[in-house]
Amino acid sequence: MPILYHHPMSTASRFVRLIFAEYGFQAELVEEMIWEKRKDFLAINPAGTLPVYVDDNMRTLCGATIISEFMDETSGVLKRDRRLLAEDPFQRAEIRRLTEWFLFKMEQDVTKPLVRERIFKLQMTPEQGGGAPDSKVLRTARNNIRQHMRYLAWLAGTRKWLAGDRLSYADLSAAAAISVLDYLGEIDWSDAPQVKEWYQRFKSRPSFRPLLNDRIRGVTPVPHYADLDF
Amino acid sequence: MPILYHHPMSTASRFVRLIFAEYGFQAELVEEMIWEKRKDFLAINPAGTLPVYVDDNMRTLCGATIISEFMDETSGVLKRDRRLLAEDPFQRAEIRRLTEWFLFKMEQDVTKPLVRERIFKLQMTPEQGGGAPDSKVLRTARNNIRQHMRYLAWLAGTRKWLAGDRLSYADLSAAAAISVLDYLGEIDWSDAPQVKEWYQRFKSRPSFRPLLNDRIRGVTPVPHYADLDF
Repeated sequence: MPILYHHPMSTASRFVRLIFAEYGFQAELVEEMIWEKRKDFLAINPAGTLPVYVDDNMRTLCGATIISEFMDETSGVLKRDRRLLAEDPFQRAEIRRLTEWFLFKMEQDVTKPLVRERIFKLQMTPEQGGGAPDSKVLRTARNNIRQHMRYLAWLAGTRKWLAGDRLSYADLSAAAAISVLDYLGEIDWSDAPQVKEWYQRFKSRPSFRPLLNDRIRGVTPVPHYADLDF
Repeated sequence: MPILYHHPMSTASRFVRLIFAEYGFQAELVEEMIWEKRKDFLAINPAGTLPVYVDDNMRTLCGATIISEFMDETSGVLKRDRRLLAEDPFQRAEIRRLTEWFLFKMEQDVTKPLVRERIFKLQMTPEQGGGAPDSKVLRTARNNIRQHMRYLAWLAGTRKWLAGDRLSYADLSAAAAISVLDYLGEIDWSDAPQVKEWYQRFKSRPSFRPLLNDRIRGVTPVPHYADLDF
């Protein structure tokens, strides 16, 4: 069976797991601790990033953007109204723009620093950069959440799904990021009714269930993490 | 005419200018100083990144990845053996992987810090973060060049073009990055014969000429910058 190297707290990995699940595509999940810089893993993906897909013929696809484009070309194109990228080039560009936003901009501003400080540093040795969370980094990332939640509220409030009338990669990438932050209790839902309504709708999809079963050693999720009605 | 917001020392902007030139696609170039965080520009691209394309109907495309995918869908697909992305999904993935490598990994490790320290900080006010270059940042970035040049040498030495037999986005993105570094005199060509041979071949393409005419206020390029035979 093909393999997907991933980490449960990696937004990009969750995004690809959601695509696979929406398209009914099977892959074996293998957890990779990227900070260990394993030689065998770097031989597959010199950039050292997650997720990485390896098929039965050892052909590899490195990174969420590349895997998502590949999935569109090989699966999405056959799915008609269940395709997660649009047909129109400008609409495709809007979906890609939002997907980049959640996978890279929000990742850099919010998700990556919070996950690194609160999860990865617990699992790293001191030589790998492990230790106590840096409170300044946490503060900055938490300040940045607000701006991203406002943008998400605007998208969720003006469109049926984040990029328009149809479910798309934009929703999958946003839900991937939000679910990581929600696991950590970093989302204030009382303040975000429109985002909550959108996320509840997404959370009840069968594709999302495996993500709600993810558990990280030493870090329990908030009590409502797996509740569809929170 | 459509507009391309760009900066002459932005690898991603150069990459898109090369695509446009290879495909004979016209756009007016408008220089954007992203550190000024202009409101009108952020309204077009909230992520604040370059390049940004705006067509005659004010439809926008933000960022090199999105513009390059759009160009493939609307122009590339018609170009047969001059298409800059392949037809086979795995080969497309390899081209995209290398393009990401040069536009993001090499950018982060080498190009972005060198350009920021040596060019942008000269043009920024102190409030914007301007000032003298940070010698520690320069040293780290220069150390990282070696590893990237080794990888490039391996690619150039084992393949006709960087991603295989045909010119592709991989070559355009690599040449975009190398040309920025070469402008700044950061490439030691005596040490990289295979990369030099590939770059010379690329440099003589008509699409490359406009980039060789770029000049930055206050920073003269190395004498060989525009020479096809250096």
